[in-house]
Amino acid sequence: MMQPQDITFNRLADQYRAALTGDVLPFWMKHSPDWEHGGYFTCLDRVGKVYDTDKFMWLQCRQVWTFSKMAQVLDSPSQYVDMARLGYDFIKQNGLAPDRTFYFSLDREGRPLIHPYNIFSDCFAAMACANYARVSGSSEAGQLAVDTLGQILKRQEHPKGKWEKSTGNRPMKGFALPMILSNLVLEMDFLLDDALIDHTLDRCVAEVMQAFWDPQTGWIYEYIDPAGGHPDTFEGRLVNPGHGIEAMWFIMDIADRRKDHALFSQCVDILLVLLEKGWDPTYEGIFYFLDAQGKPPLQLEWDQKLWWVHLEALVALLTAYRSTRRQDVWEWYQKVHAYTWGHFPDPVYGEWWGYLNRQGAPLIPLKGGKWKGCFHVPRALMRCSQELENMYNG
Amino acid sequence: MMQPQDITFNRLADQYRAALTGDVLPFWMKHSPDWEHGGYFTCLDRVGKVYDTDKFMWLQCRQVWTFSKMAQVLDSPSQYVDMARLGYDFIKQNGLAPDRTFYFSLDREGRPLIHPYNIFSDCFAAMACANYARVSGSSEAGQLAVDTLGQILKRQEHPKGKWEKSTGNRPMKGFALPMILSNLVLEMDFLLDDALIDHTLDRCVAEVMQAFWDPQTGWIYEYIDPAGGHPDTFEGRLVNPGHGIEAMWFIMDIADRRKDHALFSQCVDILLVLLEKGWDPTYEGIFYFLDAQGKPPLQLEWDQKLWWVHLEALVALLTAYRSTRRQDVWEWYQKVHAYTWGHFPDPVYGEWWGYLNRQGAPLIPLKGGKWKGCFHVPRALMRCSQELENMYNG
Repeated sequence: MMQPQDITFNRLADQYRAALTGDVLPFWMKHSPDWEHGGYFTCLDRVGKVYDTDKFMWLQCRQVWTFSKMAQVLDSPSQYVDMARLGYDFIKQNGLAPDRTFYFSLDREGRPLIHPYNIFSDCFAAMACANYARVSGSSEAGQLAVDTLGQILKRQEHPKGKWEKSTGNRPMKGFALPMILSNLVLEMDFLLDDALIDHTLDRCVAEVMQAFWDPQTGWIYEYIDPAGGHPDTFEGRLVNPGHGIEAMWFIMDIADRRKDHALFSQCVDILLVLLEKGWDPTYEGIFYFLDAQGKPPLQLEWDQKLWWVHLEALVALLTAYRSTRRQDVWEWYQKVHAYTWGHFPDPVYGEWWGYLNRQGAPLIPLKGGKWKGCFHVPRALMRCSQELENMYNG
Repeated sequence: MMQPQDITFNRLADQYRAALTGDVLPFWMKHSPDWEHGGYFTCLDRVGKVYDTDKFMWLQCRQVWTFSKMAQVLDSPSQYVDMARLGYDFIKQNGLAPDRTFYFSLDREGRPLIHPYNIFSDCFAAMACANYARVSGSSEAGQLAVDTLGQILKRQEHPKGKWEKSTGNRPMKGFALPMILSNLVLEMDFLLDDALIDHTLDRCVAEVMQAFWDPQTGWIYEYIDPAGGHPDTFEGRLVNPGHGIEAMWFIMDIADRRKDHALFSQCVDILLVLLEKGWDPTYEGIFYFLDAQGKPPLQLEWDQKLWWVHLEALVALLTAYRSTRRQDVWEWYQKVHAYTWGHFPDPVYGEWWGYLNRQGAPLIPLKGGKWKGCFHVPRALMRCSQELENMYNG
């Protein structure tokens, strides 16, 4: 197989860019704003019709982040800033519980429905507020981002607080929080002092690359015990290939920032192993969950093909390829690109399916819901087009 | 289509009975007992090998119930009483939290892992202890059943207690608890006084048949608001056909006890509507979850075919047919029987698959896990064989 030509980079960059600005962003800008009560509708059916009006904080925050980011990188930024403001104002006004953590969900009018049991609402709120501060100049938003990050860091050893159902007889540490922090700190670095950034990134890199990554099996585990071990339990055996793959580009970004070529290169190696192990040899695509020992998985949705997993893989592969130009990386990129573009975009009504069955057919006829919003698709399309343009221009 | 002949009842009774005593019970008696630490292994792979040793209270209790029940209806009862005792002693010794509610899970040795966040552990514990008391004569077990039921009834308005994540701004009532109580009270009637039985059954029947069943749509909903309404929210739209179907035979049993023919007949009508609406017209079998308005469901596993749904449908249909001899009931029975026996039993290694994909192929290679144990299969095989024998002899 030949190395790709510059013209290939250019053609692909156009493809990602066109989908972003010609399909995905217009879909969300048309169907998602709640001009009456603020915030966004995220439950959009195949054609974009709102089928539920509840407002889930993860997705409200992620959409604020997306439009704030688009305002930084696309033409005509003011329309994106306006969209971001619609969500930021709603979150700011309605999202905070008395203890300054963020509710999990609100109703359309902003009344809280589900208590802040989940620290990831706070993570996405910090990410949203920081990026909104960047494009709006709002110091209030910047302060809320910094305060929220402070809360998260204070709670990171016990992220579930009083909602922790485990008795403590088998303490386990989750991968999701260190993974998200490794991205969040970079997203809000302009608001933080260098000591905090360095200290937190050091810790994240150590957690991801030493504690959660297991050189023996090649997996990044979802849960480890306090000694870094992998107990033979449902949690201890659980792997989510998409999580590991997404984390690899988060850590590659840290490696880039630190000019740590060894770390970058290690991420690329791990990424390829995760893809090999997570790939469905029968129907293609990347599995959602697996048991590291090959035992029966607990998750009934284990064999489904999810949009974000494949999009994050594309980001990771292009990030890896831009720096390494490794042919095996490019081959994997082509394979994941073909699967992703062949299955997820909806050529009839636009935007992307979220959930495919193992065979690759749409499983749920939605463009957005409780967990899929305006985030992974536009973030990945933007990032991929940037990486491809850099390669074309470089 | 002709009405079935007596010889058909006899042949079918033999089929269910042979699977129970020749396959399913031997599988669990061979692979499940933990003779070292007590209780049962429920995580059994395709061949019966233990792949995880955690002990989930739902399944520990349900297996105690199963073996206690088998001791009441099958030959050579002492082997079943011994099996039941192994689980009862383990539960009694390790399962209770200081507040006398039951943990959700324990490790192999009996150390608590997950706090009693889930009232259904208590429901299945009461069911287990009552039936164990019946076959063992243990007054301690009987008292524990009665005390546990008392706890449940006291908590029924707020079954989640401090684990309730909802803020109270949109109060909803769940179907599962009234549904389970309608069966539990009959299971332990010999321990209860008539006033409590009648009062609780009155309430269960009213809840299921008036509050949760909606004559307009024909669905039994999973959640209703306090006024009995169906808000246009994910919870408010959710239906689980298998739950409704199982509840119909619980209520038919109450109707039988009360000689309430109108109630029985209403259950049969509802049952057939649930089957019509819950049946997959493309691949056959009964869906796991649906949205009552046909909107995109939240549950990624919505289209899967689960063992218990189909087995409970068989029990409901034979219970309905025994009393009504309605031809439409018999036709549905034949259809569900053919699907169930054609897809769930594993002809190679015995016992039954739990989880099939929409197309009807095994999705997870297990015979038991965190949620499937020794309960629905043997209970339904026993009950169906009894109904068929009664029809043959009647």
